Amino acid sequence: MRPKIYLFGDSITEHSFNDGGWGSSLAHHFSRTADVVLRGYSGYNTRWALKVIEKVFPPPERGGAPLAVTVFFGANDASLPDRYSVFQHVPLDEYKQNLHAIVAFLKKQWPSTHVILITPPPIDEDGRLQHPFVENPSGLPERTNEAAGSYAKQCLNVAAECGVSAIDLWTKMQQFPGWQKAYLSDGLHLTRNGNMVVFEQVIHKLREEGISLETLPADLPLIAEIDRNDPLKSFDF
Amino acid sequence: MRPKIYLFGDSITEHSFNDGGWGSSLAHHFSRTADVVLRGYSGYNTRWALKVIEKVFPPPERGGAPLAVTVFFGANDASLPDRYSVFQHVPLDEYKQNLHAIVAFLKKQWPSTHVILITPPPIDEDGRLQHPFVENPSGLPERTNEAAGSYAKQCLNVAAECGVSAIDLWTKMQQFPGWQKAYLSDGLHLTRNGNMVVFEQVIHKLREEGISLETLPADLPLIAEIDRNDPLKSFDF
Repeated sequence: MRPKIYLFGDSITEHSFNDGGWGSSLAHHFSRTADVVLRGYSGYNTRWALKVIEKVFPPPERGGAPLAVTVFFGANDASLPDRYSVFQHVPLDEYKQNLHAIVAFLKKQWPSTHVILITPPPIDEDGRLQHPFVENPSGLPERTNEAAGSYAKQCLNVAAECGVSAIDLWTKMQQFPGWQKAYLSDGLHLTRNGNMVVFEQVIHKLREEGISLETLPADLPLIAEIDRNDPLKSFDF
Repeated sequence: MRPKIYLFGDSITEHSFNDGGWGSSLAHHFSRTADVVLRGYSGYNTRWALKVIEKVFPPPERGGAPLAVTVFFGANDASLPDRYSVFQHVPLDEYKQNLHAIVAFLKKQWPSTHVILITPPPIDEDGRLQHPFVENPSGLPERTNEAAGSYAKQCLNVAAECGVSAIDLWTKMQQFPGWQKAYLSDGLHLTRNGNMVVFEQVIHKLREEGISLETLPADLPLIAEIDRNDPLKSFDF
């Protein structure tokens, strides 16, 4: 059976199979080698993720360990506590503890699985004001880039403390001039180019962990390997 | 656990998670309700598919029956026997028998699973001459629309004989003026618009079989259902 790569996260994961999304790009990339399994839950923070994690992943006795799991939370946790998305806010210390608990759950269940933490993306506050989720007469964004940065930093700390790898999306995206509109469609969610950045970062990180098209066996003979003069020879298993 | 929808077929299935592909559109559509599992094998015909089918699908004792399986073969079987893709050619009668055997395998293994046969798409012979897979000095295409039509017809016959549903892609696509370039990128594989047609047809057929967003339960509480004043209430399972 093919190995699996789980994508666990919030809306930026749930939407990742939309047109040009990073999840579908991964599934296409690994189309003959691994199943990319979508476990994105829009609006969720790490507190809710922890509540449901046993329902998200199959128990270890059902099927083998996945190759890898991306854990991509923080954008909702970092909602400011005094703005309209307060119901999604999780204090920074609790976010860190929750991420630790998520990694511990996965590593206990599947010690060999590569866990990749992804920091929240940067926030374009102007985009959040232009595209609020609810009426927002305050004139203040419900998320700020500074807050997202604090959560991103704790995400990296958790990865270092747990000995798992991490993608610093918050920093990476801001290295590109004009990242605010180039990578974010509403100040928070990803554009096609933003999706491409995540895809490339995940591929790069998986490769560092030894997971690539060069190392994964293809599922069943590839057409290029089939002898045109005796095709059935390839199917004598 | 989420139910699964398997996509079993040749390159038109294997490529279906490419940008704008019908597989990724399905995965996005069912992002909180079902896993779309890619089992596309470029270049394969029904003869090779039958050889490997026990390796493609998990044995029934491992996990429950999938909701549905799309079976999308014929484009390679219909390669003409006197042209350069002869090694992929399968005679029409054998194609029909093979499709029968594929359906029988799936229905024996999982009697409740909805099997959806998809006919090969039409062929744009001009496109095949402009984009040959190997050097083709003959000036003759290795696939013709007429041959594809014969295989499509047998595919529909198999569906009727087995009592499973079918999508007549060969006919459906040709109802659109300019289908040759609108739906086919190289006379055989799908453009973005061609992928959209397959996606819409599959969604429509699944709905006829009772499989839709209205009938499938969402995996875990949706953000719109979560009480903003007491979010954790939604997670008391």
